[in-house]
Amino acid sequence: MGRVTERRRVIRIRDGAVSARPDTLVAEEPLEIRLNGRPLAITMRTPGDDFALAAGFLVSEGVIAAADEVQSIVYCAGATAEGVNTYNVVDVKLSPGVVVPDITLERNVYTTSSCGLCGKASLDAVRTQARFPIADAPPVRVTPELLASLPDRLRAAQRVFDRTGGLHAAALFSEEGELLDVREDVGRHNAVDKLVGRALQDGRLPLSRSVLLVSGRASFELAQKAVMAGIPLLAAVSAPSSLAVDLAAETGLTLVGFLRGASMNVYAGEHRIAVEAPATQG
Amino acid sequence: MGRVTERRRVIRIRDGAVSARPDTLVAEEPLEIRLNGRPLAITMRTPGDDFALAAGFLVSEGVIAAADEVQSIVYCAGATAEGVNTYNVVDVKLSPGVVVPDITLERNVYTTSSCGLCGKASLDAVRTQARFPIADAPPVRVTPELLASLPDRLRAAQRVFDRTGGLHAAALFSEEGELLDVREDVGRHNAVDKLVGRALQDGRLPLSRSVLLVSGRASFELAQKAVMAGIPLLAAVSAPSSLAVDLAAETGLTLVGFLRGASMNVYAGEHRIAVEAPATQG
Repeated sequence: MGRVTERRRVIRIRDGAVSARPDTLVAEEPLEIRLNGRPLAITMRTPGDDFALAAGFLVSEGVIAAADEVQSIVYCAGATAEGVNTYNVVDVKLSPGVVVPDITLERNVYTTSSCGLCGKASLDAVRTQARFPIADAPPVRVTPELLASLPDRLRAAQRVFDRTGGLHAAALFSEEGELLDVREDVGRHNAVDKLVGRALQDGRLPLSRSVLLVSGRASFELAQKAVMAGIPLLAAVSAPSSLAVDLAAETGLTLVGFLRGASMNVYAGEHRIAVEAPATQG
Repeated sequence: MGRVTERRRVIRIRDGAVSARPDTLVAEEPLEIRLNGRPLAITMRTPGDDFALAAGFLVSEGVIAAADEVQSIVYCAGATAEGVNTYNVVDVKLSPGVVVPDITLERNVYTTSSCGLCGKASLDAVRTQARFPIADAPPVRVTPELLASLPDRLRAAQRVFDRTGGLHAAALFSEEGELLDVREDVGRHNAVDKLVGRALQDGRLPLSRSVLLVSGRASFELAQKAVMAGIPLLAAVSAPSSLAVDLAAETGLTLVGFLRGASMNVYAGEHRIAVEAPATQG
């Protein structure tokens, strides 16, 4: 419950000089997410926004897509033999009539008869599970200059990073570049789940006119979360993976990587970036 | 099977100039790890060194601790309905007599009756599961200067990072600073599992006289992997989490973070760092 940082003693070595002092660290604790009382997943997360994290996780997995599909989210007070509340177990009860899909305990576990387990099956699963096809009409369209301004705004809004350096951050911006929300977590996927879960709770899904910025790399899992929330543009400060690019290309997601200063790479969905068509090289 | 990178077309924007060209991306594909034919875990990984990854994962989970506890590791040729080999499913068969512990499908899932699910239970579980208590006698002892030299050596040894920017790296060094092995992966935990698995296959466990360097942050999960392999010193280029520091303090692991240039922070096990005892401040 809000234990975002913790203090520990640290020995600092700076060019040969040694000193001991207290240091602020990002907190990390396990969180178990239960669905209708049944254990579904465990993630190592930074405590705080746990209900949003659970809700966003369920959006990413295709279980829910609107606030009224959730009846309640509670910390399990009786999670231990002594009935103590650890605030590390949350139970999401779905509203009557909401179908509980047959999802496995592992994230991104998709198999097909044709390939067993492969990247293609992972892509197909996201496409079929997506509750919100990316449908921004007219398409969101942003300039490189607007995109270039976002990382600085994210850093300015990060509350904990400066103190610990240990947090991944994710932020939602409007298509005009206005900062809508920012979340930080020791796990990059958790930061995005917290953003998406909060949007669901506020009745803002699908996020069809939003830009998602992440402070690190763009993995398949992060691209999946953007698609599942109906976000048309995902921008990452670092590199994307091959499977993230493939998922973006197949679903119509715009994927920008290496967003640094006035430089960036557009890996898919370039129609949302307001530039002249490039000359092909190389 | 060695699909470490893939090529995709990218639109580059550099200070207003737009060009299209092929780009090299880090490959990401799912890998299912089976234990004696039973599905155990799925991880999104960079293909390559998959047998080492599976072996190292099982070391981290406390299932195996020596090469002769493994009878065979194979790609499941019949992983699909058509019997096609995707090279994304590996089966580890344990040697006769090796006990298959009751491990769950999720990583780091530790509960106790006293706290249900909490950080303390996670720490206790690693301590009881550890097959190799950290037992470096006499203790490994390194200078700050030696530690400061390691990140540059890791970067020099990284083969893929320069091309894709999308890989986490992990390296093992001797206590004299000699580079013993380096692995890269889209997932930081996979890079460490590959290192540890290769060490198991080569009969080098426990790694009692080695230093583990990781290119990013030090999470609980990475500290756990170091402890389970008997590594006495974990150094990270970025921040540790609170739970990683707690695990290090409880198990006797030396944990160094923010290892940058001649600066570093020592969070636990400072007796392995050759400096004068510091004056306490703050």
